[in-house]
Amino acid sequence: MATIDSNPASGTQDFLPEAMARRHHAFALVRDVYERYGFQPMDTPAFERLDVLLGKYGDESEKLIFKILKRGEQEETGQADLALRYDLTVPLARFAAANSGTLPMPFKRYVIAPVWRAERPQKGRFREFFQCDIDTIGSDSPLADAEPVIAASEVYAGLGLEDFTVHVNSRQALRALVESYGIPEEFEETALVAIDKLDRVGADGVARELRDREVPAELDALTQDLAADDLEERARDRLAGTERGAAGLAQADAVLALIDGHLVGGQARFDPVLARGLGYYTGPIFEVRHAGIGSSIGGGGRYDGLIGMFMGNDVPATGFSIGIERLLLLLEEQGRDHSSVPTVLVTVFDEDARVDAIGLAVRLRRAGIDTDLYAGDGKLGKQFKYADRRGIRYALIRGSDEREAGTVAVKDLDSGDQVDVAEADLVEHVQRRLL
Amino acid sequence: MATIDSNPASGTQDFLPEAMARRHHAFALVRDVYERYGFQPMDTPAFERLDVLLGKYGDESEKLIFKILKRGEQEETGQADLALRYDLTVPLARFAAANSGTLPMPFKRYVIAPVWRAERPQKGRFREFFQCDIDTIGSDSPLADAEPVIAASEVYAGLGLEDFTVHVNSRQALRALVESYGIPEEFEETALVAIDKLDRVGADGVARELRDREVPAELDALTQDLAADDLEERARDRLAGTERGAAGLAQADAVLALIDGHLVGGQARFDPVLARGLGYYTGPIFEVRHAGIGSSIGGGGRYDGLIGMFMGNDVPATGFSIGIERLLLLLEEQGRDHSSVPTVLVTVFDEDARVDAIGLAVRLRRAGIDTDLYAGDGKLGKQFKYADRRGIRYALIRGSDEREAGTVAVKDLDSGDQVDVAEADLVEHVQRRLL
Repeated sequence: MATIDSNPASGTQDFLPEAMARRHHAFALVRDVYERYGFQPMDTPAFERLDVLLGKYGDESEKLIFKILKRGEQEETGQADLALRYDLTVPLARFAAANSGTLPMPFKRYVIAPVWRAERPQKGRFREFFQCDIDTIGSDSPLADAEPVIAASEVYAGLGLEDFTVHVNSRQALRALVESYGIPEEFEETALVAIDKLDRVGADGVARELRDREVPAELDALTQDLAADDLEERARDRLAGTERGAAGLAQADAVLALIDGHLVGGQARFDPVLARGLGYYTGPIFEVRHAGIGSSIGGGGRYDGLIGMFMGNDVPATGFSIGIERLLLLLEEQGRDHSSVPTVLVTVFDEDARVDAIGLAVRLRRAGIDTDLYAGDGKLGKQFKYADRRGIRYALIRGSDEREAGTVAVKDLDSGDQVDVAEADLVEHVQRRLL
Repeated sequence: MATIDSNPASGTQDFLPEAMARRHHAFALVRDVYERYGFQPMDTPAFERLDVLLGKYGDESEKLIFKILKRGEQEETGQADLALRYDLTVPLARFAAANSGTLPMPFKRYVIAPVWRAERPQKGRFREFFQCDIDTIGSDSPLADAEPVIAASEVYAGLGLEDFTVHVNSRQALRALVESYGIPEEFEETALVAIDKLDRVGADGVARELRDREVPAELDALTQDLAADDLEERARDRLAGTERGAAGLAQADAVLALIDGHLVGGQARFDPVLARGLGYYTGPIFEVRHAGIGSSIGGGGRYDGLIGMFMGNDVPATGFSIGIERLLLLLEEQGRDHSSVPTVLVTVFDEDARVDAIGLAVRLRRAGIDTDLYAGDGKLGKQFKYADRRGIRYALIRGSDEREAGTVAVKDLDSGDQVDVAEADLVEHVQRRLL
């Protein structure tokens, strides 16, 4: 019989037990922190009607949406009517509109869930990955912008990450800054795409791209400022000079004032050239970076226009997304094992010992001891090897001699030591070993 | 601007915070129990290559698979190359083959994850639903069949369910029983489909279906036995009479002997007419039923053939699936709220009070107190209403008077009582209220 290719679909991955244990650990931490901060869990389905997703992400991103074929007789049409979610923000907008009558307002939510994007598969980039989003709907207060970032710092710290920087800007400040270099509004997006690359290509690289794309601009002044050590001060001066710039700066500063002093293990600063990719941001924007990690470990911002596409009326909203997959890679590199390893393996001497062995195992478990039962019988060497493979330290052995004597042999697989323990004392004996 | 339909896609549902809290509660219980029993977490991607899923479930089920359109230039072909997983067992078989070198053997896994089926939407039946599967691969021991059922009983009990019955049969026993009524092998499947409806249509209903479908059988004997109070004894006698029947009975009895006495809140019994739907079962089969609930709350069995379709060589496997969505409905009916409700709402007096309010909230959270911060400011009445909507009992109020005096007003929203507490004593004061 020909076998089937057993690899997961291109760009996706299987999660082995160690990986799942890390994921559970990280997700539990996120849940714990965000619930302590008053955010509520929610979720939406994996797929949405096509019209919910289309027209929200821009043409390039839209090509990456996984579409689902119509079913039954309609399958032949080759048309799609559903699609896998591409992010967690557009589904939230739909959700908020669908449930506006029952949600408390402002509504503070968190969600940890997979999204799917048909990116070209490459190392470390997957077509299925989890996002961890925290949003507040129905509030235009900078408190709503600041809170998720402070909470995220507890998550970062809880995962062992320190010395990160929260970059804060606002869309208004950014646009005013671009305008101040004589860049006309119709070239704004092109200019922002170029400026966003400052970290990678440097001030000259940005200038080159602006020149190549024929963006009208005071290039000398811009290049000098982008290269300057006191870029932040120069930008503040420029922004303070115009009404629009001052308003944008005030927006960023209001959030910075609320974050100030509350980050665990990190700091926040005004970053006048932070752009963030997605088109739908309208107010303060954030990005969290760490020197030891190439790309951002979190980001977000205010998007006051999106919910209205579903609600009909404008609803302010702001959100932050923790780069959970990146943090999981970090956890993996730390090499700590978060698996719940059973304390004990109950070995099974032979077929006749099954009833006795399962009884022993159940007793230990009901006493709260993580206990594995070997799902087979026969050679103890093979069973010890299994225990070793799983990292289980103690093996219980009970052949006919032990059963007759009413004892259980407890073998320490680390030291090789073995002691006989009376059956009645077994639970207490194992618990003592755990101290 | 025309708004977009905000309902989730047909047959899917949004999960509101209360529902998510129930799901977290139930999933955490399952994880806790199964890890205590030595099972390891794993997961696979939401979608698989089409060839992984096709040819495994039978023609009728295959029509319910959601297929994903090819992407990019290939989209125009209208063809699919991927599909959403239809269950968690076939992906496990692929996973086991892909990771056979790194998994401990026997491999004991659990997984809680969504699957998708394009069923006609109807009340209580969804196109996206979670399954909770527990399987052991690489063991032909009845211990592997028995353990997941015992663990499941702890889950049922933990969710407040008692007095359930585990029905146990084996595929061999069932086939021998069918044969004993003179039903030829080629009519076996048709006969099993009819017999499986005994609970709903009664013995006469089964006989009618067999007659309608022209299944050759000793119908009188069969109808009498199916209607008899001592059906179990009659079946045991029949099975004991043939080699095949005796072997099948021994298989079921071996599992029953291992389960015996270990179920929390339930009992197990031999059910000679238990059939279970899926074609791939090969040995012992189970189904858990509860008088108060229409359909089964769990089921499974041994499927020694499936993994081999991916591995090339035969690998024994057995599994059990907890009917987690049904149990979640039950939790909902119980009406207990599993949400993590914040203890305190920090109100925000006005714009000037923001920095102070967020500082207060962060302090309480860092002391481990679940604290919500009102994401806005202004009228306290509106903020108290928000607290009430969320079930938050205490509101902290701090206007300019309190700030000057270095105090915080703690208002009990249940009783209406309000006391002033020195800022330095706040954490301790709130903690004392929680005792």
